[in-house]
Amino acid sequence: MQDTIRTLIQKNSSKIFMFVLDGLGGLPVRGSTELEAAKTPNLDAIAHTSACGLHVPVGYGITPGSGPGHLGIFGYNPVEWQIGRGVLEALGLGMELHNTDVALRCNYSTLAEGLVKDRRAGRIPAGRSKKLTEKLQEGINRIDEAEIIFSAGMEHRFAVVIRFPEPLEIGSTLVNDTDPQKTGKAPIPPKPENKQSERVARIAEKLIREASDILKDEERANYILLRGFSQVPEIPSFEDAFGLKALAIATYPMYRGLARLIGMDTPVVTGDIREETEFLKNNLNGYDFFFVHVKKTDSYGEDGNFEAKVSKIEEFDGVLPEILAMDPDVLIITGDHSTPSLIKGHSWHPVPVLLKSPYVLGRLSERLTERECTKGELGIFPATGIVPLALANSGRLRKFGA
Amino acid sequence: MQDTIRTLIQKNSSKIFMFVLDGLGGLPVRGSTELEAAKTPNLDAIAHTSACGLHVPVGYGITPGSGPGHLGIFGYNPVEWQIGRGVLEALGLGMELHNTDVALRCNYSTLAEGLVKDRRAGRIPAGRSKKLTEKLQEGINRIDEAEIIFSAGMEHRFAVVIRFPEPLEIGSTLVNDTDPQKTGKAPIPPKPENKQSERVARIAEKLIREASDILKDEERANYILLRGFSQVPEIPSFEDAFGLKALAIATYPMYRGLARLIGMDTPVVTGDIREETEFLKNNLNGYDFFFVHVKKTDSYGEDGNFEAKVSKIEEFDGVLPEILAMDPDVLIITGDHSTPSLIKGHSWHPVPVLLKSPYVLGRLSERLTERECTKGELGIFPATGIVPLALANSGRLRKFGA
Repeated sequence: MQDTIRTLIQKNSSKIFMFVLDGLGGLPVRGSTELEAAKTPNLDAIAHTSACGLHVPVGYGITPGSGPGHLGIFGYNPVEWQIGRGVLEALGLGMELHNTDVALRCNYSTLAEGLVKDRRAGRIPAGRSKKLTEKLQEGINRIDEAEIIFSAGMEHRFAVVIRFPEPLEIGSTLVNDTDPQKTGKAPIPPKPENKQSERVARIAEKLIREASDILKDEERANYILLRGFSQVPEIPSFEDAFGLKALAIATYPMYRGLARLIGMDTPVVTGDIREETEFLKNNLNGYDFFFVHVKKTDSYGEDGNFEAKVSKIEEFDGVLPEILAMDPDVLIITGDHSTPSLIKGHSWHPVPVLLKSPYVLGRLSERLTERECTKGELGIFPATGIVPLALANSGRLRKFGA
Repeated sequence: MQDTIRTLIQKNSSKIFMFVLDGLGGLPVRGSTELEAAKTPNLDAIAHTSACGLHVPVGYGITPGSGPGHLGIFGYNPVEWQIGRGVLEALGLGMELHNTDVALRCNYSTLAEGLVKDRRAGRIPAGRSKKLTEKLQEGINRIDEAEIIFSAGMEHRFAVVIRFPEPLEIGSTLVNDTDPQKTGKAPIPPKPENKQSERVARIAEKLIREASDILKDEERANYILLRGFSQVPEIPSFEDAFGLKALAIATYPMYRGLARLIGMDTPVVTGDIREETEFLKNNLNGYDFFFVHVKKTDSYGEDGNFEAKVSKIEEFDGVLPEILAMDPDVLIITGDHSTPSLIKGHSWHPVPVLLKSPYVLGRLSERLTERECTKGELGIFPATGIVPLALANSGRLRKFGA
């Protein structure tokens, strides 16, 4: 369908806002979901006059990670465009990725007599991990033809980017994880699965050897395990696919990274909903589409903190008048997936969507809640339908056929 | 999507029940459908707290046969996996089928002066047909390299399995039907449509000749017509596709045969809903998924017997407390297609689905009826979504992507 949409695009000066409250959807706890429990007079008012529904992020029963969750609401089929683990880790740490790069997620681990004694090096604290990663970067910044870039993560985790002088052939990242997944086993050497991946495997092998040498006097973090060899997918840019110049306003590096994968502008923004809304207000010129990411609804859902998720939704409701005052042609409010506090994690449940525009029926849903949205004019529909609907409602799609 | 699901499977000890009330959906007669007319206090109670919706078995407007109807609710795209007529006939007669077999559905017919005088041999009674089929089996149990197995059916119908010593090449069953479809015409000789189907055509030709010889003194059933040359599809097993070890509890051979096609265990069970539920209770160990098939809702629908279909639904409602007492992690109640008494046959209408699990919204549908299900949280969705939803609700699917 993306191919069809592309042929229909026409430009105009309309503005589309997409507010993504991460992990928005929930399940009832003592009878009410988080959205149902929240006091949201402003949201209620626009829900009543907007098109509402629920989107299915990937497919029935499928619980999406953040990558596929966002690709879907950005209009890309998340099964067709898969993002590797190494890439997502690197994006999450704010690393830039090019089409010449291979990204890995790595662990510090403890090796004793050739066997993995602790896969996480006793979960060494972030401060220590940061120091070690700096030490590795000082000692290793090039292996053969490739530049090596390290970035420290949480606890025992870090990411490595292997930057080659030119784009790699397809299949170049088919190298196995070296983590044996169990303690008491030897690490698995990185082996190429085909001819194209030989150069990546060769550099990975040298990387392990050089890192071991640098870390050899460490008591716990004396070895590194490599996983998720991957490259950025050759995905069409959001502007190419949908004709929209887009600004991503997100405080967490991973979401900026995801937006950057499809060519959105991704300035560093700090703060929360208020600061993000302020940033939006100051950057309305020069863009057609604004993706604003609110992280904490998901975080509180993951913590199983029903009340905090409710409060975060109410906080968003408090900012909504300011958002409406900017008078976007189309306003979308949704999530990338559901994160019910009941489940303490992402879930497969369809996600409430609100689409505000002059061209809707309205008066079908009283509120933006899971149950009220089942009554809405958008129905239960694939996430990839959201961006085309936004384009249509902003007058940006020509008629298909005569 | 099945490929994606397969990569996400994780095992646990949960139990999933799928009760298939064959031909469940209906249409209003004097204002009410069969489900609406039925008094179902137990079903009503769980409908109120479950996820409800309607599944589309194959596609909008498409009336499924029993084969595609079941494949869809078992999670297989029924357009991708088609089951040949010969195979379905043989399964319906309880014949075992292997990947070395070609199955045909056959008719006794009357030949006079080389022309088909009666395509159904005057619809000879089952008793006579059974005798003739035994006679054929006595006279023909091998042709060239193949074993020949007969099984008598209703009236003039019977099935033949040609069992080769080894699996056949793809395309081996491309042999035309020999039935000219009109009386007064000569039967069509079985011709191979390609090189691979030559051996099947050769055996079919000899089979017709040898059968004619045995039947030559019959007044009416003196000739056989062959149709629906087919093989079992090379379909992935239910356990491979979804990680579920499955038990099929069905009293009719065809449904056991369909279940056996995808590797479910299919013990012979007699009786009706009560006996099937008792059988379920005694076989809970050793399986993850339980398919229980209730035939009579469809049969009464086909008869146009509205009241009897209502009674059968009420009978199921009476057994429901026993089913609930087994405390499945996920309970699904649905049909393989609709069979409205009004239509006296299968129909294209979406089929009510109820999914009971702790991870649903609930309170959207008052009853499991066609109209109440339109209000439900599952929406109107493809039949192939049911098994993935059951997997998700039983904690058997990992997150997709990071």
